[in-house]
Amino acid sequence: DNINFSVSAPGKIILMGEHSVLYSKKGIAAAISKRTYLHFKEHKQAHEQITFNLKNINGVNEWDFKSVYDLITSHKPLVVDSLKEFNLFTPELLNHDEFVNILRQFVIKKNVESGPKQKSMMCLFYVVVGMLWCTDVNITPFDIEISTDLTIGAGTGSSASFAVCSAAAMYHYIRLKAMQKHGVGEFNISYEMFKPFNVTLSQHYCGFTSQDKEIINKWAYCVEKVMHGTPSGLDNTVCTYGNTVLINMSDGSEEFRKFQMMDAMPPLRVLLINSGIERCSSDLIAKVADVYKLCPEAIDGVLQAMDTVALQFIKLLKEMKEQEERGEITNVYTKLEVLIDIQHCLLKSLSVSHKRLEEIVECCARAGLHAKLTGAGGGGFAFALVSPSIPEDVVDKTITTLYNAGFITDDIVANSEGVVLDIKFI
Amino acid sequence: DNINFSVSAPGKIILMGEHSVLYSKKGIAAAISKRTYLHFKEHKQAHEQITFNLKNINGVNEWDFKSVYDLITSHKPLVVDSLKEFNLFTPELLNHDEFVNILRQFVIKKNVESGPKQKSMMCLFYVVVGMLWCTDVNITPFDIEISTDLTIGAGTGSSASFAVCSAAAMYHYIRLKAMQKHGVGEFNISYEMFKPFNVTLSQHYCGFTSQDKEIINKWAYCVEKVMHGTPSGLDNTVCTYGNTVLINMSDGSEEFRKFQMMDAMPPLRVLLINSGIERCSSDLIAKVADVYKLCPEAIDGVLQAMDTVALQFIKLLKEMKEQEERGEITNVYTKLEVLIDIQHCLLKSLSVSHKRLEEIVECCARAGLHAKLTGAGGGGFAFALVSPSIPEDVVDKTITTLYNAGFITDDIVANSEGVVLDIKFI
Repeated sequence: DNINFSVSAPGKIILMGEHSVLYSKKGIAAAISKRTYLHFKEHKQAHEQITFNLKNINGVNEWDFKSVYDLITSHKPLVVDSLKEFNLFTPELLNHDEFVNILRQFVIKKNVESGPKQKSMMCLFYVVVGMLWCTDVNITPFDIEISTDLTIGAGTGSSASFAVCSAAAMYHYIRLKAMQKHGVGEFNISYEMFKPFNVTLSQHYCGFTSQDKEIINKWAYCVEKVMHGTPSGLDNTVCTYGNTVLINMSDGSEEFRKFQMMDAMPPLRVLLINSGIERCSSDLIAKVADVYKLCPEAIDGVLQAMDTVALQFIKLLKEMKEQEERGEITNVYTKLEVLIDIQHCLLKSLSVSHKRLEEIVECCARAGLHAKLTGAGGGGFAFALVSPSIPEDVVDKTITTLYNAGFITDDIVANSEGVVLDIKFI
Repeated sequence: DNINFSVSAPGKIILMGEHSVLYSKKGIAAAISKRTYLHFKEHKQAHEQITFNLKNINGVNEWDFKSVYDLITSHKPLVVDSLKEFNLFTPELLNHDEFVNILRQFVIKKNVESGPKQKSMMCLFYVVVGMLWCTDVNITPFDIEISTDLTIGAGTGSSASFAVCSAAAMYHYIRLKAMQKHGVGEFNISYEMFKPFNVTLSQHYCGFTSQDKEIINKWAYCVEKVMHGTPSGLDNTVCTYGNTVLINMSDGSEEFRKFQMMDAMPPLRVLLINSGIERCSSDLIAKVADVYKLCPEAIDGVLQAMDTVALQFIKLLKEMKEQEERGEITNVYTKLEVLIDIQHCLLKSLSVSHKRLEEIVECCARAGLHAKLTGAGGGGFAFALVSPSIPEDVVDKTITTLYNAGFITDDIVANSEGVVLDIKFI
């Protein structure tokens, strides 16, 4: 049978620490139940096209298989420094800029207009070409179809979940093709010039191990660089590992790590509310930098308070987890609500709120829901925590009230699953 | 000629540090150009009444001079502990509660209904009886007429300015009477049982020295206790000394003092805007205490940020002063505005703002003015800093816009003069 599978990856929201994480303060990000889905379908060798169908940006593109195959086979020396160090596990050794230039030339030749579609194609080719370079598998043409629940370019990790799905799909395809070639067992799947890379090949995969995710995350980060230039790596990490990711948070016992993946934080029901106001994250980051320059001590005071609030928030999530493990009804929601209120005001004090975001927060407050902006602010999204004590009709009414005020709300879950493999058809 | 003079004392606003000062954090209070005025007029001995005319609470009350005189002469042993330590400089040695009870009985006998009028009468008698106890001067009947620019009971120091005026008037009356008795020069004016207290008596006083103010402030604090139970002493200190008073701010070189009087901070033009929402300060203080109890670390983070912002604010005022002394145009307003914005958001994060206060802040922001709540919040007042760069017509339009939204605005000056003596008639 032809290879045929689906992967999906979550979007993300920032729970705590917008902007402050850029000043080494603690923050918390969470995967959400809105996801991006990728369906991969292999064709027989006779098929002459590779098809990328990006449903949400109306981006169907067919590519001549031969020319893609040539691209994969012809540019291997591009890899920087010692070829002998490179393999599927070390995409950071690629000469990223040169590689991206080659991909751009390739895509432009096909007359893909510049913009999101062109960038998406370059991203897909980054993993298709880059990951296949690393290996000795033989490929045939395939279709990739991608759709998403996420609003694109709105700060909820749409590009990272796209990147993670792409990397995960290509990784899964490679190990399936390697299995077809080598059979079941542990085999080196690296291309002969490169550093050996052993993978345990199997006929049936039920998902991605933690090493699989490390590979996926690394390639997704490269794709994010194609999309955003110098991403922090947070979004791809959250979209790969899911659940909760702590930022700049040392837990004392281990070495300081920029991101710390938590895999069992309790799910939080939240309303994700779109302010409908477009904003440019980098402008908002510059705005905070300007006010920081003007009043460094005062802004640092605010950032320090944000840090404290973020730390308390994660402590409460851990407490909630322990309470739930002991079968107790959790009592931390009231405190989480206080922290959400405070954090929103602290963000407002950095001048990154917006009239419409304030309207959302007030509208939620009138219903007893506690909301804060999420992401860079200045527009974009807010989220409201839905405590189990809030009656369902109050939630419904709030969503209606928000709708009547021009705000679209999604009733979602934060701290959701990361990248997953779905072997059934979509 | 009969003694005839006026004194006046300013109201106050909190510039920075509402609530946080109750948690040992730094704050700044300022005297404002809205004042309370007291006119004192002595009658000949033949007159049989002492008249208190509290114009703003429609509180005209006549008191039989003989009964007041008896009160003054009959209760001296009330003073606690060693009578030999007591004098005009040490009102803290009075048995406050017992004294207040006597005054309450005295006032109730006159059928003054309980409420603000009764309390005001008790306050006036506190200084009339208490201060005259200390001395050996002979008095005759007099009229006291008090009026104020301040909104009563709205957190702008109306009661403290009333207390300061009362204490200042009685102090001035005593030294004038002492001069009539002893002549010009340094004399002990204490009552014979008490500790000697030397005062330099003069025919012409042009105001109050720093020791005079210390006495006035001490008695005003006692009066504030009659009014409020356990006041912090901030309001009477600001209304006595004027200008700027720093709270919980050690300047490093000297011993820590709860209040630190600054006497030459530059005047700041502000719009004082009444939200029209009545609130109870103690309820708001309790609200913050509750949330502090719930999330101590997070709230402490906010309070710490408030502390930092307050410290920066006073540093900027000092910088402004130095710039003005060097004849330079000051450039600190933009920074002061940032700090005002931040401090308001920090207060909002303590849940002590109010919808109407937010409306004021937004309305000001639309005009380029930066405003924050002042006082306990939950209603009461906001102030907006008027930078010299704001055109006059913008200020006028803002006041009109605020008025149309139901807010009364006063165009005032903060960091104004403290208690002053005006020897001319009102």
